[in-house]
Amino acid sequence: MKISQLLGERFKERAFEIESQNLMTRGGYMKQVGNGIYSLFAPTKRIQHKIERIIREEMDNIDGQEVLFPVVMPATLWQASGRYTSIGSEMCRFRDRSGADMVLGMTHEEAAVHMAMNVAGTYAKYPFMIYQIQTKFRDEPRARGGLIRVREFTMKDAYSFHTSQEDLEKYYERAYRAYERIFARVGVPEVIAVKSDSGMMGGSVSHEYMLLTDIGEDTIIICPECGFKSNVEAAECIVCNEKDDEIKPIEPVATYENKAIEEVAGFLGVEKNKMCKAVVYQRNEDDSYVLIFTRGDVEVNEVKLRNYLKAEVHPATEIDAAGLCAGSIGPYELKADCTVIFDRSLCGGTNYVCGANRDGFHMTGLNIERDLGEVEYVDLGKAIEGGVCPVCGKHSISVSNGIEVGNIFQLGTKYTEAMDMTYDDENGKRQHPIMGCYGIGVGRLIASVCQVRNDAYGPIWPISIAPWQVHICALRSDDENVRAAADKLYRDLTSRGIEVMYDDRSVSAGFMFSDADLLGVPVRVVISPKTIGRGMFELSTRDKSIKCDINPDEAVEKVLETISVLQSRIDEQVPQAK
Amino acid sequence: MKISQLLGERFKERAFEIESQNLMTRGGYMKQVGNGIYSLFAPTKRIQHKIERIIREEMDNIDGQEVLFPVVMPATLWQASGRYTSIGSEMCRFRDRSGADMVLGMTHEEAAVHMAMNVAGTYAKYPFMIYQIQTKFRDEPRARGGLIRVREFTMKDAYSFHTSQEDLEKYYERAYRAYERIFARVGVPEVIAVKSDSGMMGGSVSHEYMLLTDIGEDTIIICPECGFKSNVEAAECIVCNEKDDEIKPIEPVATYENKAIEEVAGFLGVEKNKMCKAVVYQRNEDDSYVLIFTRGDVEVNEVKLRNYLKAEVHPATEIDAAGLCAGSIGPYELKADCTVIFDRSLCGGTNYVCGANRDGFHMTGLNIERDLGEVEYVDLGKAIEGGVCPVCGKHSISVSNGIEVGNIFQLGTKYTEAMDMTYDDENGKRQHPIMGCYGIGVGRLIASVCQVRNDAYGPIWPISIAPWQVHICALRSDDENVRAAADKLYRDLTSRGIEVMYDDRSVSAGFMFSDADLLGVPVRVVISPKTIGRGMFELSTRDKSIKCDINPDEAVEKVLETISVLQSRIDEQVPQAK
Repeated sequence: MKISQLLGERFKERAFEIESQNLMTRGGYMKQVGNGIYSLFAPTKRIQHKIERIIREEMDNIDGQEVLFPVVMPATLWQASGRYTSIGSEMCRFRDRSGADMVLGMTHEEAAVHMAMNVAGTYAKYPFMIYQIQTKFRDEPRARGGLIRVREFTMKDAYSFHTSQEDLEKYYERAYRAYERIFARVGVPEVIAVKSDSGMMGGSVSHEYMLLTDIGEDTIIICPECGFKSNVEAAECIVCNEKDDEIKPIEPVATYENKAIEEVAGFLGVEKNKMCKAVVYQRNEDDSYVLIFTRGDVEVNEVKLRNYLKAEVHPATEIDAAGLCAGSIGPYELKADCTVIFDRSLCGGTNYVCGANRDGFHMTGLNIERDLGEVEYVDLGKAIEGGVCPVCGKHSISVSNGIEVGNIFQLGTKYTEAMDMTYDDENGKRQHPIMGCYGIGVGRLIASVCQVRNDAYGPIWPISIAPWQVHICALRSDDENVRAAADKLYRDLTSRGIEVMYDDRSVSAGFMFSDADLLGVPVRVVISPKTIGRGMFELSTRDKSIKCDINPDEAVEKVLETISVLQSRIDEQVPQAK
Repeated sequence: MKISQLLGERFKERAFEIESQNLMTRGGYMKQVGNGIYSLFAPTKRIQHKIERIIREEMDNIDGQEVLFPVVMPATLWQASGRYTSIGSEMCRFRDRSGADMVLGMTHEEAAVHMAMNVAGTYAKYPFMIYQIQTKFRDEPRARGGLIRVREFTMKDAYSFHTSQEDLEKYYERAYRAYERIFARVGVPEVIAVKSDSGMMGGSVSHEYMLLTDIGEDTIIICPECGFKSNVEAAECIVCNEKDDEIKPIEPVATYENKAIEEVAGFLGVEKNKMCKAVVYQRNEDDSYVLIFTRGDVEVNEVKLRNYLKAEVHPATEIDAAGLCAGSIGPYELKADCTVIFDRSLCGGTNYVCGANRDGFHMTGLNIERDLGEVEYVDLGKAIEGGVCPVCGKHSISVSNGIEVGNIFQLGTKYTEAMDMTYDDENGKRQHPIMGCYGIGVGRLIASVCQVRNDAYGPIWPISIAPWQVHICALRSDDENVRAAADKLYRDLTSRGIEVMYDDRSVSAGFMFSDADLLGVPVRVVISPKTIGRGMFELSTRDKSIKCDINPDEAVEKVLETISVLQSRIDEQVPQAK
């Protein structure tokens, strides 16, 4: 295709903080239609097709059957699983012309069970896996980062059905490997699988596939010593508290206007890890208060809190109403109407500073067991840098940010029980199948690759997913020799099935190269009066690893060779299928 | 893939009247999730992929760029074109969590203009065409026939942009040919293009691609003499009226309880074409009445009526309120508060029978000009069998039913003007681009092919879109020789890239063949103790055109040969691209 025909404008102005959003906007990859809703131009659609093909191959390799579920579903389907009420406003609901309640699919467990129901009534049919690649809509409150977090997106979602937990685990392992292969084939072999919390999906074991990058919204806990990896939401928080030699008496100290944990610590000259911090939440259902005490340097992990309370919560809005003294809440002589929980991070420490429940004062010398009696510690903290690895026990935890590009869940029988899908086992007994589910957001993956494969000038697309394989720049195409040579190369490559972007516009070299950089095509051939003058074309790769002159007579072969070098670099990183 | 793994059940019971719905339900192709909403099993998804590939190739061949528009769009986009209010309840609307009005895309002219706006500001960028293959939702009041008429469906929609009507027409011609090629490649070369009414899309010239079949909801007017083809909605209705030798006086006649046109004609012993029939509508906006007189054998074409009145109408509900005498409405001595229109079918006739505006009576001998004075005749009738062809003038019109499988429209500047999309022409003057749009419903096309390519036992899928190319039936797979031979053929074909459905279940021949018939795979190889006994496999085609024994050693080559024979039969029907 000629670049002059390509719809979408490329421009220089940086418009966004997040680099992938910036480059994909500047490069004419997408256009915002509404909050978190985008139209995709041809380059993005081409990348999407290639990623989808890789996903399909890997899903088919683990015996997946591609199907299609609807985007719009009757509410009755979601009422059957109970999620019509349990999911909040991120699920779009509307009434159709007949007045029936409908929803937009944000995930398709219910649809998968509906499809498989009545057509998998005997154990002999199991296991099986069905998957689709389809549009989903989630009414995200915080769409951001271009395609990183949107409301409408294309997703591959897969659902497997099993007759035993053992069989699910065996299949889960295959899916786990298939996912590793997918990310490696897409060109981001550095994606790691981390333990995760199952959230609204239900189920027990689950993993998220994370691409580590500073702009990631997820926090990943990694132990470089033993390889333990987890989303912070699912990670134990283990810290060590050493006992002071001298146990001090508990006594009040004036702290005046100092309220925030940093202010008090600074004012009193103690480390944050010697502070006993108070964090207040309210239960969504009745606005009742939940007060958590943690070590001063440990944050509350809301996911753990929800799981512990078995209730939805939000940060408290009016603390005074609970009889709490904002800025000076402490467990000693506390008089308030709320649930009080002690985070495990406080366990074993001595001589804490805490609020005195009196404006302008704190207590020093808090020794929990001595001053409060026995308390129950609960693990509600976010793991911290330098914390203890729950697997190998070393003080080795490191904290990174990551983008979740995929996830896999062992769902169990949550949906098959709720919707009463059954099969007859070998003994003719009715059983509920055990499910797994496996998702990849295609658009987010494109943006994520862009986020970690770029330079100052544009994306550097891996050859396996690049919108085109070769970009021909004909500089001074008004020069007869340049025109003839470039036209011929374009024809020859195209006829060999190579995808070529051809720039034969009458624009400056700078302009042309800047456009080429923004399109990020892996192999570039420059033909100009200068290269023709020395009887050559100039071949280079977008990643700058290769740059050489090639003989026009061998140009097609050299280009093919370069493509296969780039492809083999990707292939080397792909783990073998098992 | 082995048939034992395939999800979806095949069964014998006929459940539906329409054959494609029946076969696709019985064959495990789809499952209803809600009214007009289906999940698609693997065979349908595989067919869909193949059709989509054909469509993509043909769209790319006419310089299309594949893009992606959102399913969910902000209402503001549709307000900009005016269609937010002009389209009725077939468009789904809802509010998102922020309270913003949103719609589900049922077509994407607005989104296409939004995408192209600001990135095609100069004439040099034109023409260009963007297309997508995406899910759409239309809240159809009458979903029917399985995938024939649904609410959610996959559609290819394309939008072209031009700087002159001439250029649009040139491109329209290319799109027209591409569509002919698509339908021929899909295996239904008998699809015809007919003139159509542009309806809610706006614009002037448009064509629908129709597959003629009795179950089609559209009525197609064809002249076998000159090749004229049109949707009845867009076709002129021309009939001939001969003058009687004797002009009779107008006089009342008692018709007692006879009210319906057939009753009155029968009672008086006249042909329906000598009756002057009254049909009453009401304008949607103010319920005001519109009374149309047509010849007794001619129906009112509501599309023409709407276009003529430039207003939406519905059949009248309370006729009395207008002062009309139901069952006896006539134009002579009519006293009623309504718009009166005479259809052209009455022109030139003499001695009509009409209502007397008096219960139990009609008038005979109505001669319109003599009795009513000059009237204006308007063409509002549906063309009828044996009517006059508007092109060649012969009494040759034939009427058929058809399914609309695609359509193409010359839109003009309706959307670019409404949304103020402009470009600078050669003289630097701002102009609105001229648009065309081009749609194909993928799911409906699948069902339509099934509707016209089947026998009593199941679909007969054309090789170009069949879910698999070859179906191996291993009868008595417990027989060691059968098992070994079938396994080997399955492996050999698969390794050659052939898509194979393999049935190695321990079921009866009848059961196995009936499943194979329902899957409709074009090439079948039967391996049984009997065929092995004579040193052969049995090869046949689903369409029964080929049946022979093949030598196991040559089986792969013979299968490949058969596939290419079937494919070449399709290719022969494909018109050349221009």
